[in-house]
Amino acid sequence: MNTQAINQFIHQAIPFVARSELKILEAKSGYVKLTMPFAVNTNHVGSMYAGAQFTLAEITGGILFMSTFDPKRFYPLVKEVTIRYKAPMQSDGFVEAKWSADDIANIQQALEQTGKADFTLEMPLTNQQGQTVAFAYGLYQGRTLGH
Amino acid sequence: MNTQAINQFIHQAIPFVARSELKILEAKSGYVKLTMPFAVNTNHVGSMYAGAQFTLAEITGGILFMSTFDPKRFYPLVKEVTIRYKAPMQSDGFVEAKWSADDIANIQQALEQTGKADFTLEMPLTNQQGQTVAFAYGLYQGRTLGH
Repeated sequence: MNTQAINQFIHQAIPFVARSELKILEAKSGYVKLTMPFAVNTNHVGSMYAGAQFTLAEITGGILFMSTFDPKRFYPLVKEVTIRYKAPMQSDGFVEAKWSADDIANIQQALEQTGKADFTLEMPLTNQQGQTVAFAYGLYQGRTLGH
Repeated sequence: MNTQAINQFIHQAIPFVARSELKILEAKSGYVKLTMPFAVNTNHVGSMYAGAQFTLAEITGGILFMSTFDPKRFYPLVKEVTIRYKAPMQSDGFVEAKWSADDIANIQQALEQTGKADFTLEMPLTNQQGQTVAFAYGLYQGRTLGH
């Protein structure tokens, strides 16, 4: 799926994410970049609410998967996420994630052979100045439809 | 703060939480019970979106703190959360958290003496049938205003 198609899909499929105004800036096979806007996601102390930062990280694994593997044949689930908040997020937040050709080949092989493939992602969340203010670690599983 | 006051405060202070329609069912010193509605928080596979379950867990630490300690003098922050998804949440979600009198006394003492107090919470998230479908572990910090 390309950037526009996946933005549209996510906003239709997950109203919770649509309401956060999360935006997928770029999505292609093996690479995604996303942003969570500050303005609509502030908290009681004037920084970005923890759950908005979590959503920015969590959805990234699913979007990387759907940008890389055929969504007509495969779909992603999340199994576990840890997020550590290091400093207040006081601007829009950003995250990138990528896979090498080898990563993609290994996941594809597991999906075809066993019907599922676990994968992990380490995701620094950065502010407008490029500083890492939170760090997320996600464990996901891709699954083959109808397997 | 009582149940009504803290519902009002959270929904005004954190629009992200207000949009999820999270509801604090009961909040008193040392005990809180919250629910996240299913209807407005579904995902691409017809269960509750991971970020909505995270928000239900994460906010619980802050609400327990604000229900127990004077919000004119103290405020809570979250430092780290891990959430593990065990099964799909296919109904409204629920969480409870509580402190003993000793827990409260220890936190109060740390807040008064050092200006801050770390605390942890283990939070099973249950469905309408009372089954635990996700499990969250949160590390929070209470702080003394102006310390």
